[in-house]
Amino acid sequence: MAAPEYPGAAQYPEHLRDQVDRYLESLRFSTEQAAGGLEEAMRYSLLAGGKRIRPVLALATAKAIGREPVWVLPLAGALELIHTYSLIHDDLPAMDDDDMRRGKPSLHKVFGENVAILAGDGLYAEAFALLLSEQQGDPASVLAAARELAQATGVRGMVGGQYIDVAETAPFGPDGLRRLHELKTGKLIAASVGCVLDLGGNLEHETISGFRAFASELGVLFQIVDDILDVAGSAQTLGKPQGSDERLGKRTYVTEFGLRGARRLAAESHERARAVLSRAAGEQGAELSQITDFIATRSY
Amino acid sequence: MAAPEYPGAAQYPEHLRDQVDRYLESLRFSTEQAAGGLEEAMRYSLLAGGKRIRPVLALATAKAIGREPVWVLPLAGALELIHTYSLIHDDLPAMDDDDMRRGKPSLHKVFGENVAILAGDGLYAEAFALLLSEQQGDPASVLAAARELAQATGVRGMVGGQYIDVAETAPFGPDGLRRLHELKTGKLIAASVGCVLDLGGNLEHETISGFRAFASELGVLFQIVDDILDVAGSAQTLGKPQGSDERLGKRTYVTEFGLRGARRLAAESHERARAVLSRAAGEQGAELSQITDFIATRSY
Repeated sequence: MAAPEYPGAAQYPEHLRDQVDRYLESLRFSTEQAAGGLEEAMRYSLLAGGKRIRPVLALATAKAIGREPVWVLPLAGALELIHTYSLIHDDLPAMDDDDMRRGKPSLHKVFGENVAILAGDGLYAEAFALLLSEQQGDPASVLAAARELAQATGVRGMVGGQYIDVAETAPFGPDGLRRLHELKTGKLIAASVGCVLDLGGNLEHETISGFRAFASELGVLFQIVDDILDVAGSAQTLGKPQGSDERLGKRTYVTEFGLRGARRLAAESHERARAVLSRAAGEQGAELSQITDFIATRSY
Repeated sequence: MAAPEYPGAAQYPEHLRDQVDRYLESLRFSTEQAAGGLEEAMRYSLLAGGKRIRPVLALATAKAIGREPVWVLPLAGALELIHTYSLIHDDLPAMDDDDMRRGKPSLHKVFGENVAILAGDGLYAEAFALLLSEQQGDPASVLAAARELAQATGVRGMVGGQYIDVAETAPFGPDGLRRLHELKTGKLIAASVGCVLDLGGNLEHETISGFRAFASELGVLFQIVDDILDVAGSAQTLGKPQGSDERLGKRTYVTEFGLRGARRLAAESHERARAVLSRAAGEQGAELSQITDFIATRSY
């Protein structure tokens, strides 16, 4: 249940999520009859629902800098394609070996492991194709956004974090844990805001650094809450079996700081995110503020 | 052995390959101690040797349009990173299940399947990071090159072709075979030339379409010869067991047209490629001509 101290917990900018869902539904990845099965697999995972936090963040950021949300839909689509690709590859038998995702069988359980690998690969490629083909903006700005997205999802970002998560065996303590999550989850969440700033072009330096500080804090908050939900949430909320991190022996904020400690860290992070957002966006940050509260208070 | 009717068979622009090898050797993908193992895995595959046909094509195309080859090194690096990623994922147990690659154990045999999946993912991300960060050129040109690269490697390109190769079970005849290879192999080879044209900026329309016709034919030629080598080459030449396509029941130019028919097709394709290159590039196409002859005549 939503914590009562956050009255905004039930609010989520559903109108932005609807825009994202309609846009994702409209995307086609193949004109070839031949590769139709691959597109079907990609859409199975892409259209499985979810809060669309990353693309909604992008649309809300556009609004917060005084632009129309619809302007960044190609970027928003690219963010969700990449997030979906990361879930597909994370679920593979060689990785976390998860049979369920968003309340449905994982992609590899339905389409096979080979198709799941290629659907992930395809989603990642189509994310860049979409951003580089469809996103409006002057070329230097689109280039900057694509560069940030590539870096956020590479070895110094999402893929590097996933590597540390699945392959590093040495103990590395709280600092290492923060670093893991900053790479694995935080960089893409930060890029969901940051790429819009890249596209925005002529923003003041102080505005940019304010939004970036907010985005970075939001990534931290997201992961702490995710770890709490893994032990304290329900399978229905998670769309996958509860406690799966624990069974895999993963290091989480809960294993490092205990459930109580993790909840305290989440509350502190939430306050910091709100404060820095308020300074950066003022009144225009209403949707970003809703997303922040939603992330902090979802189902615990 | 090289066929005697092609006196250029032994020639390959080794000076361009040396430039590529030095550049690839200089690339670093992680400043993090933590993800060092991932970088090690990526470099294991990236620096395993090979003719570097795609990046060398890019450098030779730069020369053919009157530019310095060194100018397109970031693009060239991106092409080889992507090619390496495709080999790593193709070799996975769920895909072609190849234990050997370029005369060494496949990446997943040495580093494990999870690291191999992530090394492939990481190489693809770093390819875009490299191209978008390091490639010189006006932003619109770099954007166009990155767009072509994303499209050539997505569902309507490399990944779509690989999907057809591993997942489509219905028979689809010679046209389907050509289409498979056009996507799986041809698009990236064509992009190795095409992205340089994108970067080149102010070329005449006729020059561009001439080079593109050449690049497309070269992709066809490459695949026919590859299929011939799979049955007629030696394991040493291939760096993997000879006959592996046949054992997997794959449709190749040899299974469709027989060895003699495939050799005839290769000779015809070679002649077409030479003719169209000669019209497009004239004297400046010396290195491209060498690469074409090399592709046509390697080891049979």
